[in-house]
Amino acid sequence: MNLKSKDLLGLRDITAEEIEYILNTAKTMKYILSSNNKKTAHLQGKSIITLFYENSTRTRLSFELAAKYMGGNAANISASSSSVQKGETLIDTGKTIDSMGSDVIIMRHPMSGAPHLLAKNVKSSVINAGDGMNEHPTQALLDMFTMVEKKGSLKGLKVAIIGDILHSRVARSNIWGLTKMGAEVNVSGPATLIPPGMEKLGVNVFSTVQEAILDADVVMGLRIQLERQKKGLFPSIREYSRFFGLDDKRLKLAREDALVMHPGPVNRGVELSSAVMDGEQSAINEQVTNGVAIRMALLYLLTRRGAANEIID
Amino acid sequence: MNLKSKDLLGLRDITAEEIEYILNTAKTMKYILSSNNKKTAHLQGKSIITLFYENSTRTRLSFELAAKYMGGNAANISASSSSVQKGETLIDTGKTIDSMGSDVIIMRHPMSGAPHLLAKNVKSSVINAGDGMNEHPTQALLDMFTMVEKKGSLKGLKVAIIGDILHSRVARSNIWGLTKMGAEVNVSGPATLIPPGMEKLGVNVFSTVQEAILDADVVMGLRIQLERQKKGLFPSIREYSRFFGLDDKRLKLAREDALVMHPGPVNRGVELSSAVMDGEQSAINEQVTNGVAIRMALLYLLTRRGAANEIID
Amino acid sequence: MNLKSKDLLGLRDITAEEIEYILNTAKTMKYILSSNNKKTAHLQGKSIITLFYENSTRTRLSFELAAKYMGGNAANISASSSSVQKGETLIDTGKTIDSMGSDVIIMRHPMSGAPHLLAKNVKSSVINAGDGMNEHPTQALLDMFTMVEKKGSLKGLKVAIIGDILHSRVARSNIWGLTKMGAEVNVSGPATLIPPGMEKLGVNVFSTVQEAILDADVVMGLRIQLERQKKGLFPSIREYSRFFGLDDKRLKLAREDALVMHPGPVNRGVELSSAVMDGEQSAINEQVTNGVAIRMALLYLLTRRGAANEIID
Repeated sequence: MNLKSKDLLGLRDITAEEIEYILNTAKTMKYILSSNNKKTAHLQGKSIITLFYENSTRTRLSFELAAKYMGGNAANISASSSSVQKGETLIDTGKTIDSMGSDVIIMRHPMSGAPHLLAKNVKSSVINAGDGMNEHPTQALLDMFTMVEKKGSLKGLKVAIIGDILHSRVARSNIWGLTKMGAEVNVSGPATLIPPGMEKLGVNVFSTVQEAILDADVVMGLRIQLERQKKGLFPSIREYSRFFGLDDKRLKLAREDALVMHPGPVNRGVELSSAVMDGEQSAINEQVTNGVAIRMALLYLLTRRGAANEIID
Repeated sequence: MNLKSKDLLGLRDITAEEIEYILNTAKTMKYILSSNNKKTAHLQGKSIITLFYENSTRTRLSFELAAKYMGGNAANISASSSSVQKGETLIDTGKTIDSMGSDVIIMRHPMSGAPHLLAKNVKSSVINAGDGMNEHPTQALLDMFTMVEKKGSLKGLKVAIIGDILHSRVARSNIWGLTKMGAEVNVSGPATLIPPGMEKLGVNVFSTVQEAILDADVVMGLRIQLERQKKGLFPSIREYSRFFGLDDKRLKLAREDALVMHPGPVNRGVELSSAVMDGEQSAINEQVTNGVAIRMALLYLLTRRGAANEIID
Repeated sequence: MNLKSKDLLGLRDITAEEIEYILNTAKTMKYILSSNNKKTAHLQGKSIITLFYENSTRTRLSFELAAKYMGGNAANISASSSSVQKGETLIDTGKTIDSMGSDVIIMRHPMSGAPHLLAKNVKSSVINAGDGMNEHPTQALLDMFTMVEKKGSLKGLKVAIIGDILHSRVARSNIWGLTKMGAEVNVSGPATLIPPGMEKLGVNVFSTVQEAILDADVVMGLRIQLERQKKGLFPSIREYSRFFGLDDKRLKLAREDALVMHPGPVNRGVELSSAVMDGEQSAINEQVTNGVAIRMALLYLLTRRGAANEIID
């Protein structure tokens, strides 16, 4: 099997079969990753370029290492030092990178849809590493991978996502992916931070965190962007934490073996108490490892498109 | 054959034979570059350090990828974060890099002659990636490579270079190289941006772009540095574009199959109209690819100096 | 033999036997480094992450090249662009890097003890690349390697360290290491920049540079941090240079074949005269080369811990 598109732009547009295929491939990659010698030749002779118009050491490093573990060439472009500043259009920048022999461009951009525009204009595969308030598909894939790993299957799983749903591309990609895979999704957060139309996507909206996490298999906190508070979208950090923060007491409302997840970095004591974050139910560090495995899988699957299927199939 | 110098500092100082040798070697490199597996061992165990005192993602990335495609170690130093800021002299910085085992130092510097100073004081080969208003030899080499690829030979070729000739190291290197290879060079641009003494170099100066591009085989636009406008060196972007911009109508004055070139990034609608830039005669993206091939050739030729000739000769 | 700890945090805590073992291993590494093909497989499949909360191109590049020469994956995180700025704790940052599969984290931090905190909380080996005013152990190891290389042994060697001892982690690590290895250490510098308690460490304090360097086998200048002058800790650059700078005349007080060393970058004409810096007794560039060898040795020794001993033992 091969992915249908040359790009991975979002989970909205790919099928449940494709998601499952990616998750399965990532299993092999995680095996490699946990071995004593993290070096394969899956990406030998391939070039992976990260093109980040927003800072993100964490995501950029995860892709960079994923590429290097598989023997690929990785190079980084950050918008702050790039010719982007010289007024070049996004498409022209993409064509330049393309012409240098890139195989995959990993793009993060503050505007929703920017990776889609790029993808249409370059020969390289494009992976969306976060576009505005739209999607962050590799994060949702690693989240789903972690849930499958710990819970066996996504089908029928009850996942509560808590926080700023409105601005969260992580939430959006998880909602597309999880509902597609047969999971049940609850959301809760300050009323100003819940977008309209959630029900149409098959998502249950709750005004209190208590209702949302009741009997949940997975409780996912989202990072609060502190700068949004200034805009008056939520009252204060202290109040946010009081009404929507996850502590041991609240966690008891979820299933006894519920997973605690967070895309990171966590504001300790705000979205999650330190006890919950460092507790036995927390899968936060495992999520980071799985992020590398998912990105290895995607880089492998996208670069071998067209080639005869090998190794994993 | 080997290059005579350990360094590539400019086209002023190398012979037509050496240029031809570099262009021929780049042909092999382009073949590797266009293959499905861009990985050779030409630079195995060699270290390529980029040392950039001016920002240039484009040129830096081109060298970095060229090194990586051939199995070399590549590391980047940008002046903004380097100990340069701690008041270290250029020579001391060079000796430090040298002592860490570098084989080639790629240098960009705002002062003309800086790479020459460095080259005299280090064991590593030095490649000039642009020094002040002096030279940018790898750009001119990739330009000439593109012309040979599309037109067969440089001998007798009529090349029109349009724009800010005065401040352009790209123009300067092209003039040294093209005249040496038997091409005819026309230049045109705002009178304040044409340096004196062009005729002595065998270059034809025209006051209108129409005259300069008449029957040209190649029309090369140069990037207008918008900050120079503020200094009063040319009237306004709109006027520049009106008098010196290249659009479809003007392009008809050149030969029917004339190549359109530009070192990039292009200010769309200023130096070139979008139609010309994206048109069939445009070789702009090809230039970018050829840039990687030229840099691969140079890295290979400079690092194997002294070694018995192998592979290509 | 193996290093006892998974980390290298300082020379205070390791034994003379361990220091000797590291120095011996570095000899092999220097041999590789000086060969025509700087590529081994010692670090194949290993990931080395530099995590620098203070700028240092020089030290960062030395570690990066050391890792690459041995086939390891190297990636850089600088605090200015990292999620550190997003308020993540140091430990959480470390656990994130750890979870991505890092084998060694190289850390520089303005606070003394930061690498120790990190080391306790991650599985990766941690190498201290400078923590506040505490230690810079790899610098001291390369200094000792250079002394052994040029003088045969550290035992009984008379080493004079001149300058701002108070703020110098280089001095501190050298004092721990050199006294442990049986060398005699003299220090001198402005009275405000000599910490109390030096004698208890077995160090001789002299108020004049002349006394300190008398009959010394090694004279080491320390970099003056120009910003400290503003705080009134020493009178002026000119006065510093007059009283504590090393010139040819003063150098004659040391042994005829005394080595001149400096961790770099040198403020020419301040700590050392240009004649001394570029003179025959100067080992400054050799120190830089030896720094790469020492870092190769450490990366090798720390990553192979637990594995059956191979190659060098």
